[in-house]
Formats: sequence, structure tokens, C-alpha cells
Amino acid sequence: MGEEGSDVPEPVRELIADDPFCAFLGIELEALGAGHARTSLRLREVHTNFHGTPHGGVVYSLADAAFAAASNASGETAVALETNVSYLDAADVGETLVATAEETHRGGRTAEHRVDVRTDDDERIATFRGRVYLPG
Amino acid sequence: MGEEGSDVPEPVRELIADDPFCAFLGIELEALGAGHARTSLRLREVHTNFHGTPHGGVVYSLADAAFAAASNASGETAVALETNVSYLDAADVGETLVATAEETHRGGRTAEHRVDVRTDDDERIATFRGRVYLPG
Amino acid sequence: MGEEGSDVPEPVRELIADDPFCAFLGIELEALGAGHARTSLRLREVHTNFHGTPHGGVVYSLADAAFAAASNASGETAVALETNVSYLDAADVGETLVATAEETHRGGRTAEHRVDVRTDDDERIATFRGRVYLPG
Amino acid sequence: MGEEGSDVPEPVRELIADDPFCAFLGIELEALGAGHARTSLRLREVHTNFHGTPHGGVVYSLADAAFAAASNASGETAVALETNVSYLDAADVGETLVATAEETHRGGRTAEHRVDVRTDDDERIATFRGRVYLPG
Repeated sequence: MGEEGSDVPEPVRELIADDPFCAFLGIELEALGAGHARTSLRLREVHTNFHGTPHGGVVYSLADAAFAAASNASGETAVALETNVSYLDAADVGETLVATAEETHRGGRTAEHRVDVRTDDDERIATFRGRVYLPG
Repeated sequence: MGEEGSDVPEPVRELIADDPFCAFLGIELEALGAGHARTSLRLREVHTNFHGTPHGGVVYSLADAAFAAASNASGETAVALETNVSYLDAADVGETLVATAEETHRGGRTAEHRVDVRTDDDERIATFRGRVYLPG
Repeated sequence: MGEEGSDVPEPVRELIADDPFCAFLGIELEALGAGHARTSLRLREVHTNFHGTPHGGVVYSLADAAFAAASNASGETAVALETNVSYLDAADVGETLVATAEETHRGGRTAEHRVDVRTDDDERIATFRGRVYLPG
Repeated sequence: MGEEGSDVPEPVRELIADDPFCAFLGIELEALGAGHARTSLRLREVHTNFHGTPHGGVVYSLADAAFAAASNASGETAVALETNVSYLDAADVGETLVATAEETHRGGRTAEHRVDVRTDDDERIATFRGRVYLPG
């Protein structure tokens, strides 16, 4: 995790880095800052669907993990309301996927984030957009 | 799996029922027919996020598994193009979630599916909609 | 407008029925009740795009008008946060489209609505889902 | 329209610029190139909803017009499959809204576009994402 994380309270960083489902899947938190986060996952056989390609739920979980990290990085609780995904290209077992989340708007009691999911060689395979509610 | 599955070719049913990622997460295929499917998952600690509630990726994976099963049940390959989710309510570890997918439209080279995710006591906690491409 | 509207305060009904943009496009409010609404539009040449078919903005506006009516029918202000649309089939000039909105969930400070858009002969041409924020 | 349009066949440009619904609403085509387009609309009273703010259908139509222009600019027919919108902020009568569409992915028989809608003073009020099918 880079120097960009200096604006995240340490207990918040530890909480987010210890996400049980991310540990179960093998998702790593690569970077975390106010309103942005990066997660990665090396694709294994257990991540595939019955077509032999990465399950939609795996790609989504990686993106959602970046989204959750970015939107909760300030320490204020953020709850996902709505998300949508465009699946653009396939990936293969053995590749490492990287999801990068950025807060693109904050106003009132909600915030909007965009997440790109890319392969090692920087090809975008999915676009994710999410809106969180900030109970305040 | 009920009698509703009699319209699904047996090799297709076996392929779908042996999804590696579903096995890894603990997702069960409860029913499968032409254009519909039902999946279930008993929530465990490994399925939680850093807030202690089920990870969005878990709810999504359960819905996506029902969507993939329903849209591929005929044996014709279907590829996910776009999905969206509304998160409506929380669920707890120990509860069993059930996702029910129905094909709501088929035309040209695409099909639309709706998936509801509910708790044991039939409370809807998420709505999912997905569109697949049928390469033909 | 049917008897279903008896649960909508009369000033609210008048406000919704006098929507300026709906009047401009030719959208009629056909029914209004707590959490549901129906709007209609007879397609004219001015509603077409450069392909000669109804503009996506026309189909959307009809659905959004039903969504706005249904979500504001109680008199409590509802503000649209997120919407998504699946375009399923085409329609032609001269046909009348009908959009039917139903509240499918209400909880906390948000509500979810589903809207179907159909032709005269009851063929669904678009599905719309929307989430509103209730400032309270 | 700028020099960026030199890659658009002239008959295609004329077709897109003469969109009947855009003319009806007052939407102007400001720029058009391969995979990108910009549209604008000066907000008038007829564009408002029953809350007195711009109707969701107006904001959507402006974004959708940019999306349709960008995705059809090559002369190959593109058909909208799925769109989604985040509503971020309000705008007022008298302001001019500008929608900028960019193709963000093309592969197989589909393409993905992102559209931002901004006010005169460059505040983003809505994000739109759309996927088209290219019948080929």
C-alpha cells in the first residue's frame, strides 16, 4: 500500500484490510486513500464458472471490494444502494485482475464511485458503477 | 431439484450443477428449468465484509449463479453483458438466502432475466437484472 | 383515472397531473395511487430519432413520468437517485405506449420502483428500474 | 461543430443532426466524431417536472442524444440495449446543459459509452452509461 493512504485512519485501514470474504477469495487490498482504492486477485480454478472462465461473481466481488474500501476509507460508514456492471472481455485462470475505484461524486447523503477492472496487461474487462448511502 | 427440470438436457444440468465457484462458496442449485433457476446459500462468517454483514459480492454471486443457470439451461451458450443490483435490506450469518431467476424477455440475440434474492422468511433483500448475449 | 386514486391527496394528484414536460410531450397520467401509476403516450413523428423509430428519450420519459408519479403519490417528496433501462423491442409511430410503475420496496430513506413499458397489444418493449431518496 | 468531425461521413452527420425529437426538445448537436459526441440544451419551463426542476426525461434525452450520435457516427447502425443513470445534482431553468459522450469499449457486436451531463459552470449533474448492439 502506497503513501496515498496517509489520509486513512489506521484503525479504518486495518478493518478494511481484514475483510473476511476478501481473505476467503484471495482478494488483496493494494492501495487505499480517501475516495480511492485498488484491489487485486490472482485467478484460480476455484474462481471459474461452468464455462471454465472467471465467474461473474468473482469479477464483481473484486470490484465491489474496491468500491467498499474507497467509500468507507474516511471512517464514515457507507452502505451500497445500487451497482451496475458492464462485462466487456474475458480473462483466464493464472491472470491477475486489478480493480481501481474512484469516488466520482459526493453530495447530500450519497456518493458515486466508478470502478475499472483490468488484466495484468491493462486491458479493461469490466466497468462497475456504484452508489452508496451515507447514514451520517 | 424438481420436476420443472425435465426440459433441461442432462449433460447441461450436470455441467451447471458442477460450477466450481459455486462449490467454493457453498451455493446450491435448487431448481433448473428452461429460463428459470433457483440457487441458495447458507451465510457463514467467511461470507461477511468488514462491517460484519454479508459481502455484496456474496449476494451478487448467488444472484449471478441463478442468472447464469437460467440463461444457459437450454444448452445454448449465453454470455453476460450487463447486470444491475438494488440492495434493499441486510441479512445475517446463519440465514439461508435464496435467489430465483426468471427469463423475462428473449429476442434477437439477447435475453433479459430478473433475479430476486430473499431470506428464509421470504423478505426480499436484493433485486438483480441481467442481459445476456446469445452468440448463436 | 380509476378509483385506485382515492388514497392520493387531491392537491398532490393535481400537481402530478399538471407536469409541464409531460404536457409538452403528450404524456397522459392514466392512473395514480399510493406506490403505483400508469402513463401513456401516442407516438408521433416528433418523438422519433434519426433512425425513424421512437427516441430512447421518449420511452424513458414515459417510464420516468410513471416512476415520478408513483413515488411522489403520497405527498412526500421523492428524488430520483438511480435508474436503469433495458430496451427490448421497437415500437412505431401511431402506436400508444403505456408505462406501469409499481413500488417494489420501501425501507429507510429510499424506495425501489419497477416500470414496464408496453405497446397497445401488450408487448413489453422496455423494463425500467428506479431508486428514489426520501429526504423526509 | 468542430474539426473533430472530419472522420464522420457527411450523410451520416446530416442524418444525426436532423434528429426529429432533438429538434422538438431544443437539443443541439455541438460536436460529432468517431465514438464521441457533444449535445447541449438550454433549459426552459416546458422541460420542468411537477417539482419545478428539469424532468429526468429531459436530462436523459440529452445524454441519450449524445450516446446515439457517438455510437452511430461511423455510419454503422447501433441499437441501444441497456442504459443506466446516476442523478447527482439539480439544475435550473435558464441554464444550459451539455452532455459529452465517449466510446469506452468496442468488442464483438457491442460497444460501451459513457456520458457526462454538466451545467455551464462545469458541474456534473448526471452520469450515464450505455451499451449498444451492432447488428453488423
